[in-house]
Amino acid sequence: MILYYTYLCTMSANTFGTIFRLTTFGESHGIALGGIIDGCPAGLVIDLEFIQNELNRRRPGQSAMTSPRDESDTIEILSGVFEGRSTGSPIAFEIRNKDHHSFDYDHLKDAYRPSHADYTYDSKYGFRDYRGGGRSSARETLSRVAGGAVAKLLLQNSGIQVKAYVSSIGEVNASRDFTIDQLDEIENSPVRCPDTEASDKMIELITKLKLEGDTTGGTITCIINGVPPGLGEPVFDKLQADLAKAAMSINTAKGFEYGEGFNAPSMRGSTHNDIFVSNGEGGIKTATNHSGGIQGGISNGSDIVFKVAFKPIATILQSQPSVNNKGENIVLAAKGRHDVVVVPRAVPIVEAMAALVIADHLLRNRSSRL
Amino acid sequence: MILYYTYLCTMSANTFGTIFRLTTFGESHGIALGGIIDGCPAGLVIDLEFIQNELNRRRPGQSAMTSPRDESDTIEILSGVFEGRSTGSPIAFEIRNKDHHSFDYDHLKDAYRPSHADYTYDSKYGFRDYRGGGRSSARETLSRVAGGAVAKLLLQNSGIQVKAYVSSIGEVNASRDFTIDQLDEIENSPVRCPDTEASDKMIELITKLKLEGDTTGGTITCIINGVPPGLGEPVFDKLQADLAKAAMSINTAKGFEYGEGFNAPSMRGSTHNDIFVSNGEGGIKTATNHSGGIQGGISNGSDIVFKVAFKPIATILQSQPSVNNKGENIVLAAKGRHDVVVVPRAVPIVEAMAALVIADHLLRNRSSRL
Amino acid sequence: MILYYTYLCTMSANTFGTIFRLTTFGESHGIALGGIIDGCPAGLVIDLEFIQNELNRRRPGQSAMTSPRDESDTIEILSGVFEGRSTGSPIAFEIRNKDHHSFDYDHLKDAYRPSHADYTYDSKYGFRDYRGGGRSSARETLSRVAGGAVAKLLLQNSGIQVKAYVSSIGEVNASRDFTIDQLDEIENSPVRCPDTEASDKMIELITKLKLEGDTTGGTITCIINGVPPGLGEPVFDKLQADLAKAAMSINTAKGFEYGEGFNAPSMRGSTHNDIFVSNGEGGIKTATNHSGGIQGGISNGSDIVFKVAFKPIATILQSQPSVNNKGENIVLAAKGRHDVVVVPRAVPIVEAMAALVIADHLLRNRSSRL
Amino acid sequence: MILYYTYLCTMSANTFGTIFRLTTFGESHGIALGGIIDGCPAGLVIDLEFIQNELNRRRPGQSAMTSPRDESDTIEILSGVFEGRSTGSPIAFEIRNKDHHSFDYDHLKDAYRPSHADYTYDSKYGFRDYRGGGRSSARETLSRVAGGAVAKLLLQNSGIQVKAYVSSIGEVNASRDFTIDQLDEIENSPVRCPDTEASDKMIELITKLKLEGDTTGGTITCIINGVPPGLGEPVFDKLQADLAKAAMSINTAKGFEYGEGFNAPSMRGSTHNDIFVSNGEGGIKTATNHSGGIQGGISNGSDIVFKVAFKPIATILQSQPSVNNKGENIVLAAKGRHDVVVVPRAVPIVEAMAALVIADHLLRNRSSRL
Repeated sequence: MILYYTYLCTMSANTFGTIFRLTTFGESHGIALGGIIDGCPAGLVIDLEFIQNELNRRRPGQSAMTSPRDESDTIEILSGVFEGRSTGSPIAFEIRNKDHHSFDYDHLKDAYRPSHADYTYDSKYGFRDYRGGGRSSARETLSRVAGGAVAKLLLQNSGIQVKAYVSSIGEVNASRDFTIDQLDEIENSPVRCPDTEASDKMIELITKLKLEGDTTGGTITCIINGVPPGLGEPVFDKLQADLAKAAMSINTAKGFEYGEGFNAPSMRGSTHNDIFVSNGEGGIKTATNHSGGIQGGISNGSDIVFKVAFKPIATILQSQPSVNNKGENIVLAAKGRHDVVVVPRAVPIVEAMAALVIADHLLRNRSSRL
Repeated sequence: MILYYTYLCTMSANTFGTIFRLTTFGESHGIALGGIIDGCPAGLVIDLEFIQNELNRRRPGQSAMTSPRDESDTIEILSGVFEGRSTGSPIAFEIRNKDHHSFDYDHLKDAYRPSHADYTYDSKYGFRDYRGGGRSSARETLSRVAGGAVAKLLLQNSGIQVKAYVSSIGEVNASRDFTIDQLDEIENSPVRCPDTEASDKMIELITKLKLEGDTTGGTITCIINGVPPGLGEPVFDKLQADLAKAAMSINTAKGFEYGEGFNAPSMRGSTHNDIFVSNGEGGIKTATNHSGGIQGGISNGSDIVFKVAFKPIATILQSQPSVNNKGENIVLAAKGRHDVVVVPRAVPIVEAMAALVIADHLLRNRSSRL
Repeated sequence: MILYYTYLCTMSANTFGTIFRLTTFGESHGIALGGIIDGCPAGLVIDLEFIQNELNRRRPGQSAMTSPRDESDTIEILSGVFEGRSTGSPIAFEIRNKDHHSFDYDHLKDAYRPSHADYTYDSKYGFRDYRGGGRSSARETLSRVAGGAVAKLLLQNSGIQVKAYVSSIGEVNASRDFTIDQLDEIENSPVRCPDTEASDKMIELITKLKLEGDTTGGTITCIINGVPPGLGEPVFDKLQADLAKAAMSINTAKGFEYGEGFNAPSMRGSTHNDIFVSNGEGGIKTATNHSGGIQGGISNGSDIVFKVAFKPIATILQSQPSVNNKGENIVLAAKGRHDVVVVPRAVPIVEAMAALVIADHLLRNRSSRL
Repeated sequence: MILYYTYLCTMSANTFGTIFRLTTFGESHGIALGGIIDGCPAGLVIDLEFIQNELNRRRPGQSAMTSPRDESDTIEILSGVFEGRSTGSPIAFEIRNKDHHSFDYDHLKDAYRPSHADYTYDSKYGFRDYRGGGRSSARETLSRVAGGAVAKLLLQNSGIQVKAYVSSIGEVNASRDFTIDQLDEIENSPVRCPDTEASDKMIELITKLKLEGDTTGGTITCIINGVPPGLGEPVFDKLQADLAKAAMSINTAKGFEYGEGFNAPSMRGSTHNDIFVSNGEGGIKTATNHSGGIQGGISNGSDIVFKVAFKPIATILQSQPSVNNKGENIVLAAKGRHDVVVVPRAVPIVEAMAALVIADHLLRNRSSRL
């Protein structure tokens, strides 16, 4: 017996945030994906074109570097907006699936693909919507990007910018860290890396792996600029804790670090500490930013900088042994065109999750002035 | 003006968990620290000695490697237990501070210590309890360890073990990964590292840094054994996302990774994928565990393995320039005895946070059978 | 100045429940209404016909007794159901508005109708979607009925029935209390009252008030049968507290009572107490049910019985003085056909809210066995 | 078998509120009762004397009208307050039980008292802390009053007053409704009724029932003055819904109504509607207040008025038949002195729950300005 539980469970965790809250729904090959944004303040101009553009940024088929499912991913807003502005009522949106009949997933009905969620979903629920990964599909992130786009609109209204870039693909690393004003051109790079030299090598690597039928991973660095000091809650909801959860909830994320991250353990206090100095305007700032913009769980006014590691895509075009839900040995091999690496398309997803966290903390922080 | 906000805000985030919930309180030099555990199932034998022992494990002054504040950290349980078992009512506990009058913190009243939370708390709240760091003190973690101890009792009842160890201090790394059954002796190591050779080098490094008045960081690796397949929620509350939040909410944590973590980005799908094989008992398992025991956000039955990076302790015995809350330049130098590195004492804290996450997901997962 | 705040606020409270959770959206004259049901256990057969029928029960225009907006209120399920059963993923649904262009609400843009939410929404949000009441429209309850229908399916699976009936309209009261097995015929009554004599008088009253251009209120009694002992949480989430909140969140509800309700204060302990007796099957039951099926916030196995009072509908066909948002005196008079009383159509809404509460507590209660 | 479940469950519902949150603990005869207030804004002056006085108002033994357990109910604040003001950190408090060894409850170990929570707790948890009702004791409300006192301090800072009075005991009703400024003297009445004539009759009734060994119920009317328009959330968290939940979560509450309440159903729209008129200061108000200060779930600036019905106390000095947990017939008779009616002491409890709701909505409403 390989199924430990039958019809066991439910997932009750499709809501993110406390005041600015996104609840999402939808499967890869269901009728639609979408969500409800609750807690968006009244009066915000909802720029539909901006939101659609964010969705377009994560859309497959944008370049030779990404997979070819043909979906326009057109968003429709169903509620909560009147005469172009948020009313304070929940903003519901949906993206209808169009291309969902064009694939045949019957051969995956009983199979457990290596490092996919097939086996764990079956273990949890007793059965699963196996069409294209169902709820575990990366297509689920569509709703995150739409919700994050509204969060970005709210943040822009407070002078806060969220931008991310690809800092490595496979063994190819960007040569240095970049600042937010150096990221204007990354949409021109098919791999969304601001280092043009590294960018070329990344494309080269992807091309090579495609021929080999193999995949790889990468990292994304995210910068949040303009955050006022004071956001974040001291104990369990430290700003970095909520950012870590946000990032690690993205499919295939394996690691999170902020500031010096995994370099910090081998540093010394005398070199890691960020010395306070005058900011020249009567206030203070830190001379360095080893802290990554957060101290004691609360933003200090410097750029918030974090990095997320993504594993190689599990679907490869090579044959792999596996088992099915009867415990029988099988051999799997994906066909057609598939992504080699997830990070270029994941850039807007990382930004969206970061925007959701900061928007929520912006409102949480405003909630309690005496 | 260095204070951006006055009497601004509140922290409403002292509760962790959804069903098994821990709410904590207390400042470093207040009257008491403690918490309320809500959602613990009725009928659990509450082993007070076990709980006290967990608190003892994080207590300062246990060895020459840690700081000397003299507190017995004796826990008192105030409610929710009757005739030795949990009743289903909230379990409140407290640890009274005894040593809290013995330090003089007046010189820190106006000062902003580098890489501490002084400035961010002032930015958020307009003023702060400056005695020993107040709520931002590492002493806050007492309540986590107490709550985590009850979570461990619940997990033990389901055959789940949570154990952590120090995998690096400064530039000294344990030579390899360890399994949970190799950790029995770590309580005998003053640095809680199972690799005796590395352990010696870590002690050597700490001794050297103590002389230099400097500090360093380290990493802790945590293993959770016996988790049944099916724990974790598919989208935002993926098991790794909640573990990441739990770990990153600990003071001075800078990074989180699970499975291959930051190694994964440079791997290939063909080598990173965990192939399913028969477990010899009619079920299946994975031949390797690059995934770290979680696929699609849900446990797969293998050991869950994650690592947390901690920065160097910010309080150093060397002079450092800083500013005060009037923006004036000052010089700070800590006195007395202070920890050089946080990780040996942080081992039970990491375990506690992991136990809280798994206990909560264990109950969440049980909540919804048809 | 009559607007105290401008662009003030948001509503972040469109989610109901803790484990079985319903999040709703939609305005009276927006594109669609709908919601997301999160936390429904996997494996439940989702009977779409049953759900549609529940929506039909609250639909206007069913009889001469109710208002005539022509909407088919056809539900579409967008996710979370695969091969007819719930998968554990969120179940999203929507009902598109069809008739939303047929009314002209421009004359209400600036007017504050007496005892409507126009003024309070403007006070809260600075502006409002004035078309047909926007989010404050009774049309919002469509999503409650859809969510409640899924809750009913879950409850039926556990042998729990939720049924309500009209116990008074205006000054006409049903002559006695009814039990759940006496309610089979109420769908045949245009006023959903099981007392046929009272039913006739209610219809008479409604006909008379329609001629007068006036409205009235009524009460609904709800019975929940088959609830096992043990549902409900002891302190703040007592079963009656959650039922009260559920009922009082319905538009125009003014009062809630359970068991003896407002009769209880004038009774004596010696007559109000429910004596325990053998149930003849080795267990116990209460000889009377003054308690209304709940003791100490927890179900005792008897029928749960509660009553909800609804005010007269605020929209009347008579002229009424009012003011507009400039503080100027105006005169308002509704035109066309409007409901005289809300309670016949509110019966399925009360049932839906009760079902949501019990379904949630059923899952909460299952969540924590040792 | 009378126990349907064994070691079944937990109660996870000891937290009230969303931003201003109170989590409570403690049993009647445990070591202490108390709670944690999370989300109180920083900078609030915490007047300990005021809080203690609120606790004194609910203390038993204040007059011949109430029961004699001898507890000083002295509160100790453990955290979250520095130099007399809230810091934004959680405010923990506790009240140690002193008199808890003086009663012998062994005879109640196996007995199910009529209309108490003995049977339902056993049904839910498999066993119970039977000493004095454990968590189901009215003593649990101590923590509500303490938390509500801090909420009142926050409200006073915004010019909001919460006051309640006894409007009936048994069949004796106050002759009319009172306004908040007519309640200054109620602390001088042993029954807390502002109508002196009714007050005398109530005392007479209590005296008579005491001799008979019987009990009765009563009603409490609560007035909240100074609430700005705009508090409350439109759909599920309507202000009246949260007030209803708050009130109905109090032990022995059986009904809740606001505004015209259960009178409303028999009224006409033309008489129930509150006509808007100028407030003489450029703003508007309603000429009448049938609505009870809330329209569409949102405060309109008028007094919020609600009433709560309480049942007769279940513990009577007369013999009553019952059963024990083996299903055997027994006879129970309380001894000693017990309250005849709960409402005089419940006045500060009702106020506390109302204050918690309004404080929370005050902060929720502030949380989301654009």
